[in-house]
Amino acid sequence: MSRIRNAAILGGVHGNERTGIVLIEKWRRRPELVARPGIKTELLIGNPLAVKRNVRYLDEDLNRAFHIDRLNGRPDDTWESRRAHELNLRLGPKLSDDPKVDFILDMHTTTSNMGDTLIIYDKPLHLKLAKFLKDRNSGIHIYLSDKPFEETIGLQSLTPHGAILEIGPIPQGVLFHDVFERMERVVSQILDFLVLANNNEIDDIRGPLEAYQRGQLIPYPKNENGEVNAMIHKSIQNRNYVQLKKGDPLFITFDGEVIPYQDEPGYPVFINEAAYYEKDMALRVNKKVVVEV
Amino acid sequence: MSRIRNAAILGGVHGNERTGIVLIEKWRRRPELVARPGIKTELLIGNPLAVKRNVRYLDEDLNRAFHIDRLNGRPDDTWESRRAHELNLRLGPKLSDDPKVDFILDMHTTTSNMGDTLIIYDKPLHLKLAKFLKDRNSGIHIYLSDKPFEETIGLQSLTPHGAILEIGPIPQGVLFHDVFERMERVVSQILDFLVLANNNEIDDIRGPLEAYQRGQLIPYPKNENGEVNAMIHKSIQNRNYVQLKKGDPLFITFDGEVIPYQDEPGYPVFINEAAYYEKDMALRVNKKVVVEV
Repeated sequence: MSRIRNAAILGGVHGNERTGIVLIEKWRRRPELVARPGIKTELLIGNPLAVKRNVRYLDEDLNRAFHIDRLNGRPDDTWESRRAHELNLRLGPKLSDDPKVDFILDMHTTTSNMGDTLIIYDKPLHLKLAKFLKDRNSGIHIYLSDKPFEETIGLQSLTPHGAILEIGPIPQGVLFHDVFERMERVVSQILDFLVLANNNEIDDIRGPLEAYQRGQLIPYPKNENGEVNAMIHKSIQNRNYVQLKKGDPLFITFDGEVIPYQDEPGYPVFINEAAYYEKDMALRVNKKVVVEV
Repeated sequence: MSRIRNAAILGGVHGNERTGIVLIEKWRRRPELVARPGIKTELLIGNPLAVKRNVRYLDEDLNRAFHIDRLNGRPDDTWESRRAHELNLRLGPKLSDDPKVDFILDMHTTTSNMGDTLIIYDKPLHLKLAKFLKDRNSGIHIYLSDKPFEETIGLQSLTPHGAILEIGPIPQGVLFHDVFERMERVVSQILDFLVLANNNEIDDIRGPLEAYQRGQLIPYPKNENGEVNAMIHKSIQNRNYVQLKKGDPLFITFDGEVIPYQDEPGYPVFINEAAYYEKDMALRVNKKVVVEV
């Protein structure tokens, strides 16, 4: 398994997700907290201008600006496209055989009740990491993305071992003491794991791993003029990772009509995330899988 | 007591507080829901450009732009100053003997766990209204502002009977079904009360009223360079209206040091409101009072 010599931890890829930003600032003051033998760890603010203005982004979502075709061309005329090119040179280049960093951990928060969620890929190191964390925090959720990096538009795809940590629920722009502690704890455990991996001490981390595989997006209901006319029904608000069955209340129109879920049973994620209104994503319905690590 | 012939209900005075915005749109489609005999009710979006961009404001906080000196002068060179002048002409003018509307209800949401909070002034009609609501929703909190309208900078001060409804906790930019229902219910009850008041049927609404009088602001702790270095302690997160005593944990620094509350006992409000980070307001500590209505 690949050795991790250079790692990067990022906060503020979305400028209004304050927890990761303040943690990066803290660790820059106290680098001993994230120092681990044999690993050089870079601490980065993803979108400093957006952080300054306390907005998710200025011109476009930075975390959707890393498609390989866009990185291979000249930057588009947006602040985030230029920043994506900078980060690609600093951390990647994406899909190269010799990226500048071997591992990226991108820290995010969400207004959705996602608890502690690690978003990973179906790669041996990721699955071992997930199993390691799950054995220490039974509550952590493992979100398995199956999109190949060639098609991936997120920052984590700049290195072969990029992963995303999502913690919620927390409003944009605020700090919650408990979310801050949870994020700090999980990041520390991830770094501990990388040391074990480098020392070939992860053979014992094995067995079945429960995970949620990326599934279908559900948009908001619309009226005949194409305007959104419903919101998430209160009976599923906050109930990420709780099975949704055909007929369960899903939305309620502004006039009070219940719209039930119509599809195969699944496990909802990112229910009612604030930043996804403009993307017309009310939730995603993942599939529960058990992977043998 | 004054008769209420013309009322205005506003949503979207802050463009990212979606609940009030969607309710205004709903009632414009179905005006019968807010129609009451003898009262002409105008439905207004406070800051339409901010709503379009899903931000609190463009240039400055609209709900701090209604000081009488600013309204009497020419508009400043901000979008919100111009909008404040427009709203003053449409609903006020402020402090005039014959304002265009007799009653304003300004609907807001907050990321702070404020429950249902009605912000009123020490005026007979307001106190009767508060008592009426309290008898119907024992959980509603009455927040008593004692600032004279001459000094008040909020939109509600355009008429003698302006009040604010604040419901939380809810992140900026999202809809919660339960918050939507609660806001709709309280607004409906307020309109019912106005009919009773107009018909002189509010003499029986009397007795002691528990309220929270506006108290002292507490800013965020800073380091020696003047940078914020602490957040709300998790033991008081969400505990608005729960008595805070000297020595209770109030903040925790990013390095883990607890900062206790140092002052007279009081009742915290607007704990950890997202929009108040830039105003450096971590919370306010109100006093509990009992007013005889």
